[in-house]
Amino acid sequence: MARSKQSRTGRQRPKGQRQPPKDRVGVWVFGARGGLATTMLVGCRAIARGLAQPRGLLTETPRFAPLGLVPLGDLVFGGHEVRSGTLLESALEIYEHTGTIRYPLLQELTDDLASIDRSVRPGTLVNAGRTILKLAGSEPSGAPLRSEIERLSADIRAFMKRERLERCVCVNLTSTEPVLKLTRTHAKLAALDKAIDADRRSAVRPSTVYAYVAARLGLPFIHFTPSNAALIPAVCELFDANGAPFMGSDGKTGETLVKSALAPMFKYRNLQVLSWQGYNILGDRDGVVLADVENKQAKVQSKDALLSAILGYPLHTHVGIDYVPSLNDLKTAWDFIHFQGFLDYKMSMQFTWQGCDAILAAPVVLDMVRLADLARRRGESGPMRHLSCFFKRPLGVDEHDLHLQWHLLTDYVSR
Amino acid sequence: MARSKQSRTGRQRPKGQRQPPKDRVGVWVFGARGGLATTMLVGCRAIARGLAQPRGLLTETPRFAPLGLVPLGDLVFGGHEVRSGTLLESALEIYEHTGTIRYPLLQELTDDLASIDRSVRPGTLVNAGRTILKLAGSEPSGAPLRSEIERLSADIRAFMKRERLERCVCVNLTSTEPVLKLTRTHAKLAALDKAIDADRRSAVRPSTVYAYVAARLGLPFIHFTPSNAALIPAVCELFDANGAPFMGSDGKTGETLVKSALAPMFKYRNLQVLSWQGYNILGDRDGVVLADVENKQAKVQSKDALLSAILGYPLHTHVGIDYVPSLNDLKTAWDFIHFQGFLDYKMSMQFTWQGCDAILAAPVVLDMVRLADLARRRGESGPMRHLSCFFKRPLGVDEHDLHLQWHLLTDYVSR
Amino acid sequence: MARSKQSRTGRQRPKGQRQPPKDRVGVWVFGARGGLATTMLVGCRAIARGLAQPRGLLTETPRFAPLGLVPLGDLVFGGHEVRSGTLLESALEIYEHTGTIRYPLLQELTDDLASIDRSVRPGTLVNAGRTILKLAGSEPSGAPLRSEIERLSADIRAFMKRERLERCVCVNLTSTEPVLKLTRTHAKLAALDKAIDADRRSAVRPSTVYAYVAARLGLPFIHFTPSNAALIPAVCELFDANGAPFMGSDGKTGETLVKSALAPMFKYRNLQVLSWQGYNILGDRDGVVLADVENKQAKVQSKDALLSAILGYPLHTHVGIDYVPSLNDLKTAWDFIHFQGFLDYKMSMQFTWQGCDAILAAPVVLDMVRLADLARRRGESGPMRHLSCFFKRPLGVDEHDLHLQWHLLTDYVSR
Amino acid sequence: MARSKQSRTGRQRPKGQRQPPKDRVGVWVFGARGGLATTMLVGCRAIARGLAQPRGLLTETPRFAPLGLVPLGDLVFGGHEVRSGTLLESALEIYEHTGTIRYPLLQELTDDLASIDRSVRPGTLVNAGRTILKLAGSEPSGAPLRSEIERLSADIRAFMKRERLERCVCVNLTSTEPVLKLTRTHAKLAALDKAIDADRRSAVRPSTVYAYVAARLGLPFIHFTPSNAALIPAVCELFDANGAPFMGSDGKTGETLVKSALAPMFKYRNLQVLSWQGYNILGDRDGVVLADVENKQAKVQSKDALLSAILGYPLHTHVGIDYVPSLNDLKTAWDFIHFQGFLDYKMSMQFTWQGCDAILAAPVVLDMVRLADLARRRGESGPMRHLSCFFKRPLGVDEHDLHLQWHLLTDYVSR
Repeated sequence: MARSKQSRTGRQRPKGQRQPPKDRVGVWVFGARGGLATTMLVGCRAIARGLAQPRGLLTETPRFAPLGLVPLGDLVFGGHEVRSGTLLESALEIYEHTGTIRYPLLQELTDDLASIDRSVRPGTLVNAGRTILKLAGSEPSGAPLRSEIERLSADIRAFMKRERLERCVCVNLTSTEPVLKLTRTHAKLAALDKAIDADRRSAVRPSTVYAYVAARLGLPFIHFTPSNAALIPAVCELFDANGAPFMGSDGKTGETLVKSALAPMFKYRNLQVLSWQGYNILGDRDGVVLADVENKQAKVQSKDALLSAILGYPLHTHVGIDYVPSLNDLKTAWDFIHFQGFLDYKMSMQFTWQGCDAILAAPVVLDMVRLADLARRRGESGPMRHLSCFFKRPLGVDEHDLHLQWHLLTDYVSR
Repeated sequence: MARSKQSRTGRQRPKGQRQPPKDRVGVWVFGARGGLATTMLVGCRAIARGLAQPRGLLTETPRFAPLGLVPLGDLVFGGHEVRSGTLLESALEIYEHTGTIRYPLLQELTDDLASIDRSVRPGTLVNAGRTILKLAGSEPSGAPLRSEIERLSADIRAFMKRERLERCVCVNLTSTEPVLKLTRTHAKLAALDKAIDADRRSAVRPSTVYAYVAARLGLPFIHFTPSNAALIPAVCELFDANGAPFMGSDGKTGETLVKSALAPMFKYRNLQVLSWQGYNILGDRDGVVLADVENKQAKVQSKDALLSAILGYPLHTHVGIDYVPSLNDLKTAWDFIHFQGFLDYKMSMQFTWQGCDAILAAPVVLDMVRLADLARRRGESGPMRHLSCFFKRPLGVDEHDLHLQWHLLTDYVSR
Repeated sequence: MARSKQSRTGRQRPKGQRQPPKDRVGVWVFGARGGLATTMLVGCRAIARGLAQPRGLLTETPRFAPLGLVPLGDLVFGGHEVRSGTLLESALEIYEHTGTIRYPLLQELTDDLASIDRSVRPGTLVNAGRTILKLAGSEPSGAPLRSEIERLSADIRAFMKRERLERCVCVNLTSTEPVLKLTRTHAKLAALDKAIDADRRSAVRPSTVYAYVAARLGLPFIHFTPSNAALIPAVCELFDANGAPFMGSDGKTGETLVKSALAPMFKYRNLQVLSWQGYNILGDRDGVVLADVENKQAKVQSKDALLSAILGYPLHTHVGIDYVPSLNDLKTAWDFIHFQGFLDYKMSMQFTWQGCDAILAAPVVLDMVRLADLARRRGESGPMRHLSCFFKRPLGVDEHDLHLQWHLLTDYVSR
Repeated sequence: MARSKQSRTGRQRPKGQRQPPKDRVGVWVFGARGGLATTMLVGCRAIARGLAQPRGLLTETPRFAPLGLVPLGDLVFGGHEVRSGTLLESALEIYEHTGTIRYPLLQELTDDLASIDRSVRPGTLVNAGRTILKLAGSEPSGAPLRSEIERLSADIRAFMKRERLERCVCVNLTSTEPVLKLTRTHAKLAALDKAIDADRRSAVRPSTVYAYVAARLGLPFIHFTPSNAALIPAVCELFDANGAPFMGSDGKTGETLVKSALAPMFKYRNLQVLSWQGYNILGDRDGVVLADVENKQAKVQSKDALLSAILGYPLHTHVGIDYVPSLNDLKTAWDFIHFQGFLDYKMSMQFTWQGCDAILAAPVVLDMVRLADLARRRGESGPMRHLSCFFKRPLGVDEHDLHLQWHLLTDYVSR
């Protein structure tokens, strides 16, 4: 079989790599059996076993070799999930829907997935919103907020103990939540703690709870979704207090990635962008969630802001997201760019992007997990600004130009 | 009228601009009545008179204000041309074909164009190739090469004297020529001079002669076309001897511009580009010339090389250029990009670029004319590497990533 | 000038054409200075004068020659309009915005347009909805409905008398109105008359009044817009009573035209269309009106229904219309078609349509005016089903397949 | 499993269907293990077994039920092939390359494919051209033409005897051959026989031999490829002599299908098509063969002719076919249509077609096999003109308008 020739990327050390960490590293995934998480888990194991190439993984390119990042094969996975079913079922569904995970691969990874399944625990649905509840197929538990936090924290601690892990990175891959209205409660840790103690559930979303739990345990945290409820000031305060780095929000993997790569070109030539219309169509669970206007709001805000930030002037923009069930996770986006040049003449450019969101996002998550682990080892804390190129709304960074964001990363790497 | 409110960009000095040069600056255009030259001349005069906005001109953005570049209104134009007719006729033809030059504008600029016409002299057709000869509608003169060079040089000298110009920039906007087979003759100035003296016409193209004339007069030279016969080592030697800066070749204004802006994105995410197919369709004189396989060769070479240079690995690419008369100068390009990501999954992106080549190129020419004049004033010589972002094949620069080329320019500007 | 060689299409009779009508024919345009009407009037006069080719006009093709339709040059125009300004100003605005009307043409047609202007009278704004009122820049007159009808009728009668016209066709080109909720009042003429007498303005829209006026005068009526308030049963009853043919609604000129041409292909191959997403972007007055959700509703209903009618099964469809001011009337539409074939494999097709709505619609209006005049001469009444190929919602016809609709027309013509 | 609920389309008789033929029907496939043939065989068996829906098969729609066509499950397959390997290997390769054949399906159909394999015999490579020889990986046998014909005929006769088949349809699915220069030899059967007896191999291609064999045995013949060497007059004479119907050539399944569906729309509106550029990119064996200029010639001729035939005037067209290995059989085509309307204004439309050629073609082949069997049963002979909608160059039919071709078929069906 052709693939047997490939090096087992995750286990072997490329030449020139520094001494890798001795220990394995835990990865705790909130939303552990969703499409993105499943793709990431299957892919990570496939690459670790030499069954797939490390495509899409930046941290597998020579530039990152000197950093001594944890090998993919040394990542140990667990997580929280609100839906029932197994990882294999989730992976089979992906095979059925889009074919992105190949069937023979699943036959080879059945044991790996079952092993991860054993470390997946029930998540939380507190104030998750109607659409997520419907997808989860169950109701939020009646447990008080504080005891819910205790339960989730205990899950992670038990996982680390059982697997004998000293380090663990948390990553939030749950569905996009409805926007949480931010108030004074979210501005200070003390206020948030008071609300939690008073069991004021409407003050949080599941992502608030997850981020709080990670912060409380002092674990690095990657917030990959657009939900605004996770990295609120109160939670960031807790991360800082416990010395854990974090970053978010909303992974930049498709149409927005292209936007941020392309928009600078118009600036370089003083071509005035008059209008930039973007239409995204997608199916699958992500599409269902975003078809709910409440949940879509968070997403569109992320996608729409960056153009005038890059170009330096206000312009007519539109970002549409429509649910097209037949596409499943094979997202298609059409962007139309109307611009004006010399002699005030108008011209246009359009592009169609046809990608699979999970395939594009999964390696980025793995890249960030490894870099977050590095940051933790190095004792860094606060927002990991060097990861801004991976986010639609990079925390603590005003820069949206992909190329300038890229330099933030490469500068960090070569330091 | 709305436009009367606009500042007359070329004549007024923005705040913070340094003392501008006292004198006006000549611009000698080889191919002075072609589509690109006509668009540039109309646009420059329209902006200078406040009849159009300075869109597309990078040198009119605040970043360039401190450089004290020559104002657009202080540029004085002349040139060589092989076709008959007037600039107004050429501009009317553009209005008829594409509408890029607005009709009322021509009514207001009639005198300006007639004035420039008076400084346009017959060019040379020596060894120009069948297609250019056919378009010119005339035969090469029988004059010996050396006397042809004398004649052309005298034209420029007379222009500068008549207009009392101390400085003049030469720019080559003639049609793409058939590739010239380079030999030892082109490697050294002495050898080239010998060939000229021996009247070996097959050793040169018109662009060789034009570049030679500019070099001989010690004038900065911008080679905007793909023809390989202009900036040969022998001619560069002459530029260096006379202390004149130069740059080329092949203006990067459309599909290739987009390519060089977009390709780095795939690199940033370790997405493997499997194939990048590009199809360009255009009409007009440029299309006629490129429909000739001989002439197309030079162009395709320019467009095809940069992808593997940016991405760092060989890939399947194709660049097609087809003549579609009905489009005139409204070039349309379709690019299809096939790439592979995580789990070896293949995805695609496609874009359609609908621009007007002359509208995109004209301001770039003006930008470079002003920057070449600056370089001359500053006593710089050799290839102007900081202009590499404007070229498909930047002389003396291996970098094709548009963003890194942009930094070369901004670094130069802020120095 | 090249065009002077062209035959003056409107005035000369091609060979084999039957005896044309002796008299000139009136065309009364509701919305006489809108973008579509202006384009139609300029074009009709330009063709009649031999200044433009009769492109886009089906009735100028040989197939229609034997019908003896009224020559374009024998059409005499008048109309109602709610906005101020002249036709020349409206035409200049079109030149400025999109260039579809060429500048030199306006210089030649100044007198023709002024002459038509003299037959344009103030229209009605009764219950027109906020957006149309805003565009009109004035308030509805306080006159009772019945007297408003009298005034408008008198305008048309005076026009016909002054121009000595025996025949006149009415055509509605006003902006899309908010959907009118239809009740018993609209089902019978007696009920509608009662409402009019009682001055119940909320029971009508301007298009109801215009259609009523045409019906009352026994004039053929073309309802080109999507407004549902015009061809209500009560008004159709009046048309029938007065023996005047009519047809509507919503001209099929762009994306929907393509849809109805393309959808049958999938049926011919038993390819299951899973999803058909259509996104329309446009600027200009039409865009402003449709940006109002109230007005858009009527339009989207027209555009969305036909796919399942053609394909014979329900499918996921979406029609978006977004306002992009910079485009003006140069509408762009992107359609994405997801379909499933052999072995249940999914494939896709996408198209981008870049047309100018007025340019596409204007000749269709002229075609229908001539055919409506013919129908009237022939003594036909009721809905002109043979014109169904020109409408998104053809009255009295269930067929949406463009090719079958085409046969309805050609069968009529060859009868 | 969801599919088990489906009716086994091939075996059950829908209501209202006439008495089906008692016996099973043979299908002899020239090119039996190519991508198209493999897809067809897998699909036919999958549908017959209720493992896939009969999508893409027109003959499975209600309109065709009354014809009493042979059920898919009663088709018995055999064929000739020049390459080695098994059908399962060929199907696995398709799974690996494009995923169009699903992996679990192959596990269920292993026996069916092995059973067909037993009826596949070595084909002929006589004068096949360099590229096909290279793909076949072997040399033409040295056997004289006449004995080659005897051998191939005996294979089919043995198959029919072994399977106890009274009827058999032949279908040519081999690769596109280089154009054969047609001479007097091909005009009359007597002349061709003479050339065969004289063993003049340069006078034939493999497709000539295959068609000759089918004609000789009096079997209906479907020529699905563009090769011009099969249905030459001499061979048609033999078909007629033996009373066997036939049809060709070049299946219309992708970009050309869309063209022939769309072009009439421009005619219906008197929109002048100025240019129609089509670019096809594809990988896989078909792409390799067409990358050879010799073989491409036949294909491009088929694709290019139909536009002016439909529109009724000459226009600028271009059809490109380029080899892009990474696409395999997932063909992508981009078409750009430039057209002119009212006021001579130019507009454009473009479409991108992303289909899998084999998936689109396979059901069409099955449809024609069943209809050819019907024609044979009915005693029809000569070209089956009612199948013209399935071909780029329909034999004996000048009509290229897909909709009019469709009427030829539906008229035949309802007769």
